[in-house]
Parts: sequence; C-alpha cells; structure tokens
Amino acid sequence: MLKSWTPGEEPDKDEMKVQLEKTRNRLYDLQMKIKEHKLPVLVLFEGWSAAGKGSMIGKVIRNIDPRFFKVATMSAPTEEEVRRPFLYRYMKQIPEEGKFTFLDSGWMEQTVKEVLNGELEGDAYERRIESIRRFERQLTDNGYLVLKFFMEIDKDEQEKRMKKLLGKEDTKWRVTGFDKWQNKHYKKCENVFDRYMKDTNMSSSPWYIIDAKDKKWAELQVMDTLVSSIEVALQNQSHSVPILQNVFPLVKMPKLKDVELEGKTIDEEEYQKELKKLQAKLGELHNRLYRKRVPVIITYEGWDAAGKGGNIKRIAGALDPRGYEVQPIASPEPHEKARHYLWRFWTRLPKDGHIAIFDRTWYGRVMVERLEGFCSENDWKRAYNEMNEFEKELHDWGAVIIKFWVQIDKDTQLERFNDRQNNPEKRWKITDEDWRNREKWDQYEEAVDEMLKKTSTTFAPWHILESVDKKYARIKALKIVIEEIEKALK
Amino acid sequence: MLKSWTPGEEPDKDEMKVQLEKTRNRLYDLQMKIKEHKLPVLVLFEGWSAAGKGSMIGKVIRNIDPRFFKVATMSAPTEEEVRRPFLYRYMKQIPEEGKFTFLDSGWMEQTVKEVLNGELEGDAYERRIESIRRFERQLTDNGYLVLKFFMEIDKDEQEKRMKKLLGKEDTKWRVTGFDKWQNKHYKKCENVFDRYMKDTNMSSSPWYIIDAKDKKWAELQVMDTLVSSIEVALQNQSHSVPILQNVFPLVKMPKLKDVELEGKTIDEEEYQKELKKLQAKLGELHNRLYRKRVPVIITYEGWDAAGKGGNIKRIAGALDPRGYEVQPIASPEPHEKARHYLWRFWTRLPKDGHIAIFDRTWYGRVMVERLEGFCSENDWKRAYNEMNEFEKELHDWGAVIIKFWVQIDKDTQLERFNDRQNNPEKRWKITDEDWRNREKWDQYEEAVDEMLKKTSTTFAPWHILESVDKKYARIKALKIVIEEIEKALK
Repeated sequence: MLKSWTPGEEPDKDEMKVQLEKTRNRLYDLQMKIKEHKLPVLVLFEGWSAAGKGSMIGKVIRNIDPRFFKVATMSAPTEEEVRRPFLYRYMKQIPEEGKFTFLDSGWMEQTVKEVLNGELEGDAYERRIESIRRFERQLTDNGYLVLKFFMEIDKDEQEKRMKKLLGKEDTKWRVTGFDKWQNKHYKKCENVFDRYMKDTNMSSSPWYIIDAKDKKWAELQVMDTLVSSIEVALQNQSHSVPILQNVFPLVKMPKLKDVELEGKTIDEEEYQKELKKLQAKLGELHNRLYRKRVPVIITYEGWDAAGKGGNIKRIAGALDPRGYEVQPIASPEPHEKARHYLWRFWTRLPKDGHIAIFDRTWYGRVMVERLEGFCSENDWKRAYNEMNEFEKELHDWGAVIIKFWVQIDKDTQLERFNDRQNNPEKRWKITDEDWRNREKWDQYEEAVDEMLKKTSTTFAPWHILESVDKKYARIKALKIVIEEIEKALK
Repeated sequence: MLKSWTPGEEPDKDEMKVQLEKTRNRLYDLQMKIKEHKLPVLVLFEGWSAAGKGSMIGKVIRNIDPRFFKVATMSAPTEEEVRRPFLYRYMKQIPEEGKFTFLDSGWMEQTVKEVLNGELEGDAYERRIESIRRFERQLTDNGYLVLKFFMEIDKDEQEKRMKKLLGKEDTKWRVTGFDKWQNKHYKKCENVFDRYMKDTNMSSSPWYIIDAKDKKWAELQVMDTLVSSIEVALQNQSHSVPILQNVFPLVKMPKLKDVELEGKTIDEEEYQKELKKLQAKLGELHNRLYRKRVPVIITYEGWDAAGKGGNIKRIAGALDPRGYEVQPIASPEPHEKARHYLWRFWTRLPKDGHIAIFDRTWYGRVMVERLEGFCSENDWKRAYNEMNEFEKELHDWGAVIIKFWVQIDKDTQLERFNDRQNNPEKRWKITDEDWRNREKWDQYEEAVDEMLKKTSTTFAPWHILESVDKKYARIKALKIVIEEIEKALK
C-alpha cells in the first residue's frame, strides 16, 4: 500500500485557497447534519514522526464547534491501561453519536512499535491483526464512520523537520529517541507500516495516505476525504449488515425446557458446611489470581426472582474487597446509549488479577433489546457473533470467563413474585416491569434458548444454575468458579 | 478459517423438516421481492470434490421460477476463455438485476487448483488475491449480493463417497484423477483452501462453510443463509459506498483549455507519405503481436464531430481483419443496463494476440452518465477507481492499453455540425442530441478534465489527439499506437 502509493497532483496556490475554503465551509455545515443524523465519527491520524499529525488535527477542529468533538492524544499506555486488553483504551475513546473523536494516534502506532521492537511477531501478530479487523468492523457495522489517515513524508523531509525541531531549545523535547531511530531505519519502518496497512485496509474502513510535505496541500487532502466520507456515511444510516457465520467452536447446550430442576436441592446443614469450605477455597484462589495477574469475569443472567443477587453475594463474600467489583447493569444511561452497545462493558472491565462480577450483561442485546424492539432485527442477529468476538478478545487477553444462567420455572417465579408483593420489606424488589416481562415468558424462553445455543463457546461457555433451591444454585456456582479458576491457574 | 471451523448443531429430524419447509417457502416468496427490488444475486458453490455442490444447486433452484435463475457449471476454461483475463469467464456469468446466477464452482476452484499444481505462488498468488478482492468488492459496491458457500466434508466421508461413485458403471466417470489426488492429499488441500478463504473473507462477501455430511442438514444451512442474506441485501438497496483513494501511479495531464491546437497540422503530401509508411509498419507489428499473443486495446473518446470515426478507420485500415474488431459503443441495451456497467466491456474484450478498438468506452460513466444523471453521484465518483482497477486487470493480463481523447475547440465543432446539417449525405451523422450536448460544453469539459486527471495511470495513460486538422490527429494516433506496441514487444 504505502510502498506503491504515489502522491496526487497538488493544485496551484490560488486553486488550493478556493478549494480549502470550500471544504472548510462544507465541514462547518456538516457538523449539524452529523448531530441531527446521530452519526458518530472516529478519525485516526497515524503516520511518520514529524509528519504533522497534531497540527493537522488543530486545523481540522477549527471548523467544528467544541461541543461536538474530542481530541485524544494516545501516548504510551498508562499502567492502568497496560493491565487491560489492548483495545480497551481505544474503545474508551470512541465518540458518542453525533460527535467526532480525533485520535493522535490510533491502534496502528502501538502495533507497529511492538513489531519494530520485536515484541509482536508470527501468530501473535496475526492474532492482533484479526482483533483489529474485528474491532473496526464492529464499529462500522454499528454505524460508526471510521476514518484512517496516514501522514506520509519521505526520509529526507523527516530528517529536515527533526533537525529544525532539535535546533531550538523550545522544541527539542518533541523529538524522541524513537523518532530518531525511525528516521535512521526509515526503510525498515516503511516495510512494517506497509504490511500493517495492507492487512487492515478494508472497504468499510479503508486507508487514506496523505502527502504531508506541504501543509496546505495536506490539509486539503484531509478535509476533502473527511467531507466526502461523511457525505457517504450520512446516506447509509439505515444500512443493514451481512450476518457472519460463527467461526468459534461451540459447546452444546440443552434447551431450557429440558433442564431438570427437580431434585436439585441441598439440606441446610450440608449447605452451611459446603459454603464455608468453598468460600475459603475461593478466597485462597483469589490471592493466587492476583499474584499471577489473571483477570476473571463472572456474568449473571437469569429469570427475574431467580436468585441472582443472593448467588452473587455468596461469591463476593469469599473475595477480598480490594480485588473485585460487582457491576450492576441497568438500562443504559444516555451517554452509554449514544455509543456502541458494548462500550459500557468494555469500560467496566477489571484490571488483570481482579474479578468483575456482572449482574446482568451485554446479553441484554439479544433478550430485552430484541424483544422490546430497542434495536433492529439486524442489530440483534449480528450481536451473537459480536459478543462471541468480544469474549474471544477477553479470552486472548488471558481472562477466565464464567457465564451463569440462573434457571427457575414459571410457577416458582410466581410464588416469589407474590411473596415480594405481600412482604412490605421486599416490595421494592418487584416492579410492574417484572410482571410485564413475565407475560412474555415464552418469547423470552425462545430468545434465551437461541442465545445459549449461539454464544456458548469453548472459551466462554454458559453454565446453568438450577435455582428452585437457591442454596443448591449457590453451591453449584461456587464449585464452577473454583473449578474454572483452578484450570486457568494450572 | 476452514481449519478452525466447527460444525453447528444439527436439529433433530422433525425440527429439520419444519425449518426446511419454512426456508423453502421464504425463498419462494423472496424471488418476487428480488425481481421487484432489482437485486442481482450471485451464488458460488465451492468445496471438496464429492461434497454435493451440484445436487445442492438442484435442490435450491426447485424453489425458484426458471425465468429468474441461471446455473453455470464452470469446468476447465475453454481455449477461447484461456485467451482472456482470468476473471473474464466469471464476469460473463454475473446475473441481471432481479435474477440469480448459481456457479458450480467459482473463481476459488480454479485458483486453488493452480496453487496445488505449483503454477501460482509468491507474488503471482498475491496479485491474484488482490484481483479477486477487487472483483468481489466491485460487485458488492455496485449492488450485487455475492454469496460464497464452501461445502465441507472430511477425508473419510469423501473417500466413502468416491468409492460409492466408482463402484457403479453409471457414476464412475464422475470421479476424476484430480478428485482422487485431492482425497489422497486432503491435508495439503485443506491448507491451501484455508489460506485462500482467509485471504478472501470480506465483510461484504464473507464465506459460509456448510457442514455437508448430511444432505438435509446441508440444505437447511444453505437455505437459511441464502434467505437471511437476501433479506439483509434488500434493506440495503440505496446504500452508498466509501470512495477509495487512488492507489495507482498517475501521469500528469494538461487541462483541455491548455491543449494547444493551433499549428497542429500536416500538409496533404506529407500526410499521404506518412500514412502509407506508418500503416505498413503497423501491419507488420500486428503479425508480431499475433505470434506473441499480446492483446491490444485502443479506446477513443472525444467531442462530437472531433473525427473519431475517420481516425479509427486509418488504424483499422492497417490491420488484418481476422485479428481485430471495432466495438462501437452506443447506449446500453436493456440486458446490458441490467448488469454491472463494466459487464458489456468485459464481454467485448479481445482474445490475446488480437486488437480491440473501442469507439467510445466505459468512460461514459463519468461523462454522459454523470452529467445526465443516469447514475448516482456515489456511482460515478467511485467509477474512477473502478475503471483504473479494470485497466489494471487488463494490464496484468498483458494487454497494451492505448486511450485517446480526440480534441477540438467549440468553434470547430460548430463548423462541422453546420457542415453536416447542410450536407444531405452527412446529415445522418448529426442528431438533436449532439446539439443538446454542445449546450453543455462547459460541464463536459469539467468532467473530462477530472477524468483525464484521475484515470491517466502509468499503465493506461491518456493521449490527446489534436484534431482540428484531422489528418494531423490520424498520423499522431498511428505513431502512438506503433510506439506503444513496440514497447510491449520488446
């Protein structure tokens, strides 16, 4: 890509002035359309050191109201960020609908640096590319405009610019050791850049190489591409996306109606004994997890009143409070709803060595959002694969993923609902919505069956907790958590 | 892809029957929607020998009215096809809008065979993949639904099926030597297939692997994917596409207004002498071209009454009629309009060693179609790149591409128009449309300038023929054709 690229023809000065003025006004007008059409725009500036990424962003944003954009300078990841999956800090930055985010620079820079340092090669490089391709595809599939600019200058120009910077006391600091190394090993870097760009050049998020030698000309190229890409994206707002085939190995799950609930009980004495033993065991494991920096993600879904809360309490009760967090998931806040539906889960990921317990999860997409029409059919049908890909990302990061479905039958639910309704102390736990959901039991059951079937991957399988006897379910959950963590620690 | 694939879960017999019935009815209903929405659907069946590609197509088409589909069995290319670019015979088969084409099998089979035979490796393989990716992207960008199925069976199953076929006199012939070889070298083939599928798995035309061991189950998988993909595609009919950056090296072209016409003349005696000499030379070269099997494509665009016809006559006059063809291009016929706009040019390509002279060309897309609104803005803006890609394909095939723009000024055109109008023998040459186009001279000039700027690649540059003196233009054309052919023959 980069190596075969040839610069376009630069217009003369007068022509350039006219065209620049035109695209600037166009961008100014488009910002309101973006707002109105709720289009999120993510713009990545990548390129050679000293190619002018930062000052280019400065020029572009002059045409946009400050309420509508955010600029993020992605320097080396912080210690907090290093302890999360590679894409975490980029996902964190994605814009709300109707707004821009400009990244200086994106996930390319970090990746090519790792390659140049010899830290990323062979299969690991392939995996990284796959994960980046999935990430970009998920963004564009979910309505994001993702624009990738590469600012290109040749070796001599780069050297000249660096010398100039180094010549002044005020700007000297801007040239890092890596920058100097890059100039010295220009050819080698070019090869790595070229390969990366070829590997990530997708028709829905293609690369645009900018001839960055002349600043005005570079600005015109960027503005032109920005404006015309936004115009195309605005026409594609209600666009559906092919449903991809599952590529991950699946574990066979029973249908809910075939889950045997009878006899899944435990007596009080046995329960207390087991509970004590298992909690002690889990506590110990938590320390070992922490030392080995293994992240654990435990998720709960299940029928209303199935006993999720009490179950979570028994897990959490065994853990050191400094090393875990319970994430209760309600309907999304406006700022969450305005982003990719997985954003609020990405941003809640634990650090490595920590445990996150999700009380309800991203699977809301294929249950409540599906059944209540909060997203389109294309959205939820696509989501099975997107969620598997998300969990694959977590798995590759090293996480242990334990997914629970807490199962009861319809009669048990009615009993518990009535109990809550009739008991003043528990009444807060029951809402009209619970009753409405209950009316749709059969639809939910169908949706859950499809979810279990399509998202029980070998690396993140579902576990069913039979919870007519809540104590039985708690002991079973503890045993599974212990078993899975032990497997991971081996 | 293929190697990491795991089969989905097969429903039980009763369930399968119900679901099959459902998808069959759905496909039956969808065929009218496809017609109504003018969606063209291209379905490729690839896969292992004896995996049941043919019989699968037989089952699918049972649900479709025979007027709405075509089945093409792509065996080894014929001699005529071998003498054309690799993609020619596949492009020939693409469906009209509103119809299906089923291919048994597509461009994968031929490619992987060449790899397995050791005929396609390294850079040549990379180029092939790029060309296939461009081809598929051009189809989907232009509104085609492209569905790629891979029919998967394991080694033992394949062996079993072949044995069965070989056991009967009536079916023995169906197992070829290659099929046997494939079974023996199953692992090696799987690696090549896997790599090819990974290289060509795009979000706009993804691969679907079909577990083909059980016939009913395979049918259900195919029908399910077919139906849901059609449903998605029907929602995306007015979908715009990102405008890709030019990746090909360009030759700088002057603006039309800067082309010097004055003094570009030749006197009669000199003209006759040169014409004779150059035509003889071209005649000789034509023989050498034929022997070396180099294809030549000469294209003419230019103002009405600029003298294209007479110019073409002087080129053609030098050639052996068995080795060239003039392709006059008028507005597309209904069956041409119903396909990708490049289809009617792909199907008119010369054999290698032959010369095709196009009197008007694919560049109509960015001139008349642009200005008269026959295609959308997104369509013609995308076309510059699509046409460059098309010519890159021809260049990689080995073709010499010579593109002429025949230039006159507005006054000269008026003179010639009046002359035609006033001369009963020439009156057929002038139409109301010519006068209407003349009124849009400035708009056309702008469009032509943009076209020359964006499509004059180093491998297929534009040449301007100053044609106020038609004889001058003819001599210049002959010289350029000779020069370009000589370069290619070296």
